Amino acid sequence: MSAPIITLSTDFGTTDGYAGALKGVLLDRIPDVRLVDLSHDLAPGDVAVASHLLARAAPSFPAGTVHLAVVDPGVGTARRGLGLRIGTQLFVGPDNGLFSGVLDTAEPVTAHALENPSLWLPSVSPVFHGRDVFAPVAAFLARGGALATVGPAVDPHSLVRLAIPSPTRAGDALRGEVVHVDRFGNLVTNLTAPKGAPATVEVSGRTLPLSRTYGDVASGALVAVVGSSGRIEISVRDRSAAAHLGAGAGLVVTLRSPRESV
Amino acid sequence: MSAPIITLSTDFGTTDGYAGALKGVLLDRIPDVRLVDLSHDLAPGDVAVASHLLARAAPSFPAGTVHLAVVDPGVGTARRGLGLRIGTQLFVGPDNGLFSGVLDTAEPVTAHALENPSLWLPSVSPVFHGRDVFAPVAAFLARGGALATVGPAVDPHSLVRLAIPSPTRAGDALRGEVVHVDRFGNLVTNLTAPKGAPATVEVSGRTLPLSRTYGDVASGALVAVVGSSGRIEISVRDRSAAAHLGAGAGLVVTLRSPRESV
Amino acid sequence: MSAPIITLSTDFGTTDGYAGALKGVLLDRIPDVRLVDLSHDLAPGDVAVASHLLARAAPSFPAGTVHLAVVDPGVGTARRGLGLRIGTQLFVGPDNGLFSGVLDTAEPVTAHALENPSLWLPSVSPVFHGRDVFAPVAAFLARGGALATVGPAVDPHSLVRLAIPSPTRAGDALRGEVVHVDRFGNLVTNLTAPKGAPATVEVSGRTLPLSRTYGDVASGALVAVVGSSGRIEISVRDRSAAAHLGAGAGLVVTLRSPRESV
Repeated sequence: MSAPIITLSTDFGTTDGYAGALKGVLLDRIPDVRLVDLSHDLAPGDVAVASHLLARAAPSFPAGTVHLAVVDPGVGTARRGLGLRIGTQLFVGPDNGLFSGVLDTAEPVTAHALENPSLWLPSVSPVFHGRDVFAPVAAFLARGGALATVGPAVDPHSLVRLAIPSPTRAGDALRGEVVHVDRFGNLVTNLTAPKGAPATVEVSGRTLPLSRTYGDVASGALVAVVGSSGRIEISVRDRSAAAHLGAGAGLVVTLRSPRESV
Repeated sequence: MSAPIITLSTDFGTTDGYAGALKGVLLDRIPDVRLVDLSHDLAPGDVAVASHLLARAAPSFPAGTVHLAVVDPGVGTARRGLGLRIGTQLFVGPDNGLFSGVLDTAEPVTAHALENPSLWLPSVSPVFHGRDVFAPVAAFLARGGALATVGPAVDPHSLVRLAIPSPTRAGDALRGEVVHVDRFGNLVTNLTAPKGAPATVEVSGRTLPLSRTYGDVASGALVAVVGSSGRIEISVRDRSAAAHLGAGAGLVVTLRSPRESV
Repeated sequence: MSAPIITLSTDFGTTDGYAGALKGVLLDRIPDVRLVDLSHDLAPGDVAVASHLLARAAPSFPAGTVHLAVVDPGVGTARRGLGLRIGTQLFVGPDNGLFSGVLDTAEPVTAHALENPSLWLPSVSPVFHGRDVFAPVAAFLARGGALATVGPAVDPHSLVRLAIPSPTRAGDALRGEVVHVDRFGNLVTNLTAPKGAPATVEVSGRTLPLSRTYGDVASGALVAVVGSSGRIEISVRDRSAAAHLGAGAGLVVTLRSPRESV
């Protein structure tokens, strides 16, 4: 069997030692663990971006991977800690919406509340469950520990989920919106591209054909493409579409295609 | 025996190749080493923050871990290079105060100056001891090499230490100060929380009870908690206390408790 | 045999999940791979800095290391994907100048175009070859796959290379320029230091002796040193020379030495 994999996604930054302490706890408990940084640069408390990160990265990982995610502004309050199995992967972190993206799946979901202190560090700081609760539970699961041991099963439908807007039909079109802005300034929408049908995208008063890639237009020009997650994205070649349009999450984007106009 | 662990803490950033070169040297010398990034984002030359990082992260790591730390504005000058054993862990880096935090311990300390060039790279750049001196010495120690081989023992009391301010008694209270501002804008003080006694904290003309966690107050409200290192911290729920108070290191924070008022 | 090493150099940042997806693909294909982050913080589309990073970091890595580099503004267009062997190391990424620095070598170079889709993910997004093409090819090579399998050999002289300026003789001196500004604000030139001869450096109307290290001058003073790559650098002790001189890439720096004046 290969060594366990634990990924880390936090808003801790790296210079205060919080992320380092997490890593120490994990290595102390599993000497051969493979630690994989997804990010420690999530904006403080930004649960939505954390959810997006996990949803984008997790599907590429092998079965059995444990994803430890700690963006936890409610640390120490009554918010639950969670251990989840979604398909073949495991997730550990607070029940605050962080897992909304990975829970938006057809895979089977099993959820348990973290209520077994015998798995935690002996002394738990009310302001650092990442180190004292979540990390040791992640280590327990990565070593093959049973999910049921972390605490009682809870109804997956009871988990906190972020309100992710769905596209709405508007006459002969689908009206969606930007739900994420990436580092390149690409505007990621909640619209899924139609398969095989020609389509046009309307954004900020412009009508764009659906292009294959950024390089299909001139440098500096606006372009709509199907992003790598299958969602329609608005981009500007070699620039930031967010800066170009002065827009971000919430910007309305409308999709028209022969299929949609039926 | 499990594979050796070497952590890395530098102010190199990642885009210039300095941190990458360090990693290459370590992997070249120990093919199965586990490299753990603590941070490469320390502010250039900021020895105090580097010291804080090590002090916060190192205690979570297993015995035998080697911590390689390079924030080294005096590179190539007469400042010493150090190999340290503090308790069960090892540290390698310049003698410039970087290890002040981890040296503030009751654990036994053994210190050696790096004076054995046979462990270094054959050609040493006077401006990059990280790659040419510290990394190969860290690799030597991680492979189980004897600390005494790196150079002569030096008196631990002779090591450079940053002046870390201590709280002072002021009438019936302890007068401390902010010594670190973290990524969340939390103001970490040098005051240790009293055990079991009620206490109040005075800061910027406000008197606060000692709360359990951030969520004990309303969003945007000032709160004093015992941080995850046992020190009292001033925070603002869901915001930055540093921005809220317009304050940082040096801000006076006063602790009053029945025990302190004896 | 020790576990394969794959380094990662991208402009993806960490918070959007692109770098995480790459890591997942690699770990899914090689459970025991050693992933080494060089950087995910390269400026978007900045091929020149990516080239500099690889040139500085790669030489320290052991034989057989695979360097996966994805700064790819032309993703999905006709630009080639490459698999390279340079000396004993392997490189995978787009043919856009990214490898200019590591190709500037006396080592033997073998280049192949990536044209074997059987090595790629089953479905390739035209906007994410990093995940769908380059990562699986890097995994194939790291497992010991033959370079010739990735696609047809191409002439190394046909590879895209950035125009890296060369110093020019100007009377009795060498006239070079700044080609990189590092995180510390050091101005890295294209001038190689003369061996053994005294030399002076002229920059911004100042004449500086060639010093050994930053600490040879007072804090805040301008200093010329031989950087850790052998190139002359203009620095300011404890400060940023780039900020001090208000200058960056392209700034003229002139080297005079008895040998040069022959």
